[in-house]
Amino acid sequence: MKKSKVRVAILMGSKSDEDQLKSCGDVLKAFGIRYTTKVLSAHRTPKETVRFVEKAKTNGIEVIIAAAGGAAHLAGVCAAHTDLPVLGVPIESKSLKGLDSLLSTVQMPSGIPVGCLAIGKMGASNAAHLAVRIMALKDQKLASQIKQHKAKMRRDILATKVDF
Amino acid sequence: MKKSKVRVAILMGSKSDEDQLKSCGDVLKAFGIRYTTKVLSAHRTPKETVRFVEKAKTNGIEVIIAAAGGAAHLAGVCAAHTDLPVLGVPIESKSLKGLDSLLSTVQMPSGIPVGCLAIGKMGASNAAHLAVRIMALKDQKLASQIKQHKAKMRRDILATKVDF
Amino acid sequence: MKKSKVRVAILMGSKSDEDQLKSCGDVLKAFGIRYTTKVLSAHRTPKETVRFVEKAKTNGIEVIIAAAGGAAHLAGVCAAHTDLPVLGVPIESKSLKGLDSLLSTVQMPSGIPVGCLAIGKMGASNAAHLAVRIMALKDQKLASQIKQHKAKMRRDILATKVDF
Amino acid sequence: MKKSKVRVAILMGSKSDEDQLKSCGDVLKAFGIRYTTKVLSAHRTPKETVRFVEKAKTNGIEVIIAAAGGAAHLAGVCAAHTDLPVLGVPIESKSLKGLDSLLSTVQMPSGIPVGCLAIGKMGASNAAHLAVRIMALKDQKLASQIKQHKAKMRRDILATKVDF
Amino acid sequence: MKKSKVRVAILMGSKSDEDQLKSCGDVLKAFGIRYTTKVLSAHRTPKETVRFVEKAKTNGIEVIIAAAGGAAHLAGVCAAHTDLPVLGVPIESKSLKGLDSLLSTVQMPSGIPVGCLAIGKMGASNAAHLAVRIMALKDQKLASQIKQHKAKMRRDILATKVDF
Amino acid sequence: MKKSKVRVAILMGSKSDEDQLKSCGDVLKAFGIRYTTKVLSAHRTPKETVRFVEKAKTNGIEVIIAAAGGAAHLAGVCAAHTDLPVLGVPIESKSLKGLDSLLSTVQMPSGIPVGCLAIGKMGASNAAHLAVRIMALKDQKLASQIKQHKAKMRRDILATKVDF
Amino acid sequence: MKKSKVRVAILMGSKSDEDQLKSCGDVLKAFGIRYTTKVLSAHRTPKETVRFVEKAKTNGIEVIIAAAGGAAHLAGVCAAHTDLPVLGVPIESKSLKGLDSLLSTVQMPSGIPVGCLAIGKMGASNAAHLAVRIMALKDQKLASQIKQHKAKMRRDILATKVDF
Amino acid sequence: MKKSKVRVAILMGSKSDEDQLKSCGDVLKAFGIRYTTKVLSAHRTPKETVRFVEKAKTNGIEVIIAAAGGAAHLAGVCAAHTDLPVLGVPIESKSLKGLDSLLSTVQMPSGIPVGCLAIGKMGASNAAHLAVRIMALKDQKLASQIKQHKAKMRRDILATKVDF
Repeated sequence: MKKSKVRVAILMGSKSDEDQLKSCGDVLKAFGIRYTTKVLSAHRTPKETVRFVEKAKTNGIEVIIAAAGGAAHLAGVCAAHTDLPVLGVPIESKSLKGLDSLLSTVQMPSGIPVGCLAIGKMGASNAAHLAVRIMALKDQKLASQIKQHKAKMRRDILATKVDF
Repeated sequence: MKKSKVRVAILMGSKSDEDQLKSCGDVLKAFGIRYTTKVLSAHRTPKETVRFVEKAKTNGIEVIIAAAGGAAHLAGVCAAHTDLPVLGVPIESKSLKGLDSLLSTVQMPSGIPVGCLAIGKMGASNAAHLAVRIMALKDQKLASQIKQHKAKMRRDILATKVDF
Repeated sequence: MKKSKVRVAILMGSKSDEDQLKSCGDVLKAFGIRYTTKVLSAHRTPKETVRFVEKAKTNGIEVIIAAAGGAAHLAGVCAAHTDLPVLGVPIESKSLKGLDSLLSTVQMPSGIPVGCLAIGKMGASNAAHLAVRIMALKDQKLASQIKQHKAKMRRDILATKVDF
Repeated sequence: MKKSKVRVAILMGSKSDEDQLKSCGDVLKAFGIRYTTKVLSAHRTPKETVRFVEKAKTNGIEVIIAAAGGAAHLAGVCAAHTDLPVLGVPIESKSLKGLDSLLSTVQMPSGIPVGCLAIGKMGASNAAHLAVRIMALKDQKLASQIKQHKAKMRRDILATKVDF
Repeated sequence: MKKSKVRVAILMGSKSDEDQLKSCGDVLKAFGIRYTTKVLSAHRTPKETVRFVEKAKTNGIEVIIAAAGGAAHLAGVCAAHTDLPVLGVPIESKSLKGLDSLLSTVQMPSGIPVGCLAIGKMGASNAAHLAVRIMALKDQKLASQIKQHKAKMRRDILATKVDF
Repeated sequence: MKKSKVRVAILMGSKSDEDQLKSCGDVLKAFGIRYTTKVLSAHRTPKETVRFVEKAKTNGIEVIIAAAGGAAHLAGVCAAHTDLPVLGVPIESKSLKGLDSLLSTVQMPSGIPVGCLAIGKMGASNAAHLAVRIMALKDQKLASQIKQHKAKMRRDILATKVDF
Repeated sequence: MKKSKVRVAILMGSKSDEDQLKSCGDVLKAFGIRYTTKVLSAHRTPKETVRFVEKAKTNGIEVIIAAAGGAAHLAGVCAAHTDLPVLGVPIESKSLKGLDSLLSTVQMPSGIPVGCLAIGKMGASNAAHLAVRIMALKDQKLASQIKQHKAKMRRDILATKVDF
Repeated sequence: MKKSKVRVAILMGSKSDEDQLKSCGDVLKAFGIRYTTKVLSAHRTPKETVRFVEKAKTNGIEVIIAAAGGAAHLAGVCAAHTDLPVLGVPIESKSLKGLDSLLSTVQMPSGIPVGCLAIGKMGASNAAHLAVRIMALKDQKLASQIKQHKAKMRRDILATKVDF
């Protein structure tokens, strides 16, 4: 059976962001979406970042998910160098707990959009969910999977009991 | 000539959000994307909001842009009731200047994603730009237009002179 | 002896909010108020949430206490679908420590009120105390209990010794 | 025809809060609820404040709405001296835009609850709406009026047209 | 030898504030100033608080140090009920880390002054230092002790070696 | 009649702080306290600042009030160079509205205390009020004036009528 | 007489930043330093920005001053592509007043340093002052000018009279 | 072989800042730059601080790195007393996590510039990197080392593998 192609790129500014991002990969796997991961820094490997992003579309990537902390420029750099939709995950930073990452990811100037998700793990998982919704626009099977996933979330919550 | 179909819905929580959102429509127009606008409040017209959102996909909508201020729940409600990608624009609020709108739009729980843009006009215009990028995934003409738009932005900036 | 009826509903957006909310149940128990608890998410079980809230009054509920974290929309959704008083408890969130939960609970638009309490356990306990005050308006026995509870708090504090 | 009795007290820390609070009185009037207003400062008229609050219940008051700015202690002082439900409106302050007022109103310690509304005019109007919901628990006519008011809000929003 | 009289009162809103406040007592002891400590809550023992504060001056107290967390009203209440100088220590709170305590202590309205110190232990120790400076205005011996203390701090710092 | 001596120094970091500080002088005048004013910057006239502060006590000054904006170091510098009580007024700054001034005034390290007042005009007036309370410790006439002033504030507030 | 060479580059993300930056040029002029200005956006002209920055050193530039607002990535991009010292000026943004610009300029990851100045005009002028100090390390004449400038600031402040 | 001279001074307000600052020394060592370290407090050893700073240039220091927490005045004091470039490192403080340190370091008034780095360790390391860039302006060997260091960072990042 032919292996499916890689459709999503998950970029992170630092190896230390990995823990917060793992849920992103988990969600994509659950939807059967192949992805590639890369540590690429807007500041420390700017050229490799640009090169990767510029070729992403040609390489079949449909959505770029970029995660960074502090002065989090990675998602913005991606959005500057591609026409693909770019989703940003603000990594929870040490001192300011991701408020810095959030503001430097979300407050992008007009014309270069980044769709920003929540700080940390929750945002990482939702970046995958939003990527799936975007890809589902031309993929009816994915659309059904979203419905099933939502139905499962619903059942899980309704099955929950509170202990007080 | 046949009129193109409506592909984007711009929802806002209040008529007073209109000024900050106008640039969203302007960008979509510039890309030749038809859109519909609605004032629909998560809190004051919850049922009509749900009804609109549930039928959005069937009605041909591909991306929902939802803008609200303060305890800004509109984008989250939209994301709960559709499988379409939902983009959120935090409206600049009176006292807290949109910090409240930003946090209540972006900090969504896992499974129900909202792609959040910047506070106010800049975010409104970028919601349109991100919607265009999403739709361009299956629309080569739009992809070319994005390139042209970026080229124009580039030329405009390079033509700018500083007066000191 | 006839069992008293359930008068308060404590809703929470996630099972993980339980620890912060337990004090809410403890206070109601101390006042002899029966309550029901439910995990119901504004985003993941929106329809069940609406259904529960719409029937709450008919089911004898007098006050709804809704607790959620991050983009905390649960209390707002409740207030949109009932005429009962709704009290909101902002759950302490991981990165922003409940500042996001607080702003998305308290900054509600005109016409759909939520009475917001403090972040976390303190707010959870006070949601119960405020519910009791509300129910005491038509229940003289509860009013006496409040006085007794305040007297006890007073005595406890006055009995406290500082060790330096 | 006998005049209805005063059921709500609107207290404010300073005459300068009046503009932000007026909508509170307007909403109560719209529901036919009589109210009394007083400028009473937790810091500058502490004894008169306590005296007023202690007699409020005997005087027929059912809900106390307290509004103050900056180190906004008025609602807390009210809650300390009565068993009635106390609702707090954080006044938008000059420098910090009401963030100070919000935190000093909402972050009350366990046992002395204040139901806090949004900063400024929106919160002022919602304090009245929440008071009405509380009083409607034992007043079927008020409950109907809430339904009518919500229906009107709904119709007003649905009649709104966006101009772009 | 005659025991010196109590000149400073250290009030705290809760027994749990004790740890953060201990340094306050330590500094006063180091300067040979006798003090009294009391857990007195602006909200839970308002009358006892007022009574204590009103008699403080007659009882020989010269400076009142009041520490509280969250909606920290204790220092403000003290300042309202005495003509003595009142110093406020914002206790580090659980969720907002004392930002709430700081703003509700420092943002007092005109006419009722509170001299606010830093959040937590550092502020607790400095409240004592400021009290000492105030009392030193009419106590030459204390003034000399301040000079000695500053000289000791100076020597301690200059003796410090950095290990890198 | 002999002119009273100057007992309070009001220092400000910049001429532009004057408007926010004027109420400080007004309050001192109302209490008949003579004061001196100086523009002295911790950063631009550090030596003159130190010289002034070091001689302040000898010159009869009892309380130093220091006001500055942004990275507001003036009050801290004063406290470092004198044993007198130093009160700090955070000036409302242009971008951050005095949050920067507040934090750099109030968060002083242990041993060098600054009693910080509210941001802007309110804090300026309260710095004077706190200075008066400090000086009243050894001045029975001032203590009476404080009582009269509080009584007047009380009467003024009680005479206020709300217009809705 | 030979014209001096351009030693400082002032880059700004948008023509609209010009007003806040003008003081930067004024200070450089006052010190007789020639500079060049460019509107170059990290997001909208990323390649031109990189090209300019990469050639800056060869072109004789010694210090790069980069100013941007919102998700302010310009200074970081400059620092990534040159070995020259890069100074960042956070432009005061519309909604968040430059808090976003500040955090995205200052919170840079290890290895790619940006020396960040204050938000807005004050920071713009100080970027020039810091550049002058840097260049003065190998330019004794500039060092003398700094002394003169500080002496003038000192005299100006000491000549200031307060009008109350 | 002759020992190189000390070119950088690392000052810190307290011994407890040492952990966060160590990376600063590590970077300088890696570049072969000799440095001196001192615990010197703007508030507790103001005279020794001024004396050290005033002689720094004569003693061969080229860049001063000053780190402090809370009301972090050390960098500003340094900048006031020298013509050398001063870089500030905001130490992560206990309650406010360095937001106070950041604002009191970066928001300096016009004319007395401090180049501020990120909060905590990251900023400490970057202060060294920025100092190296400044010294490299007249030191071609250092310029080459920066290139090598950036190349190494680049290789390290590109060699990183993500484990999901």
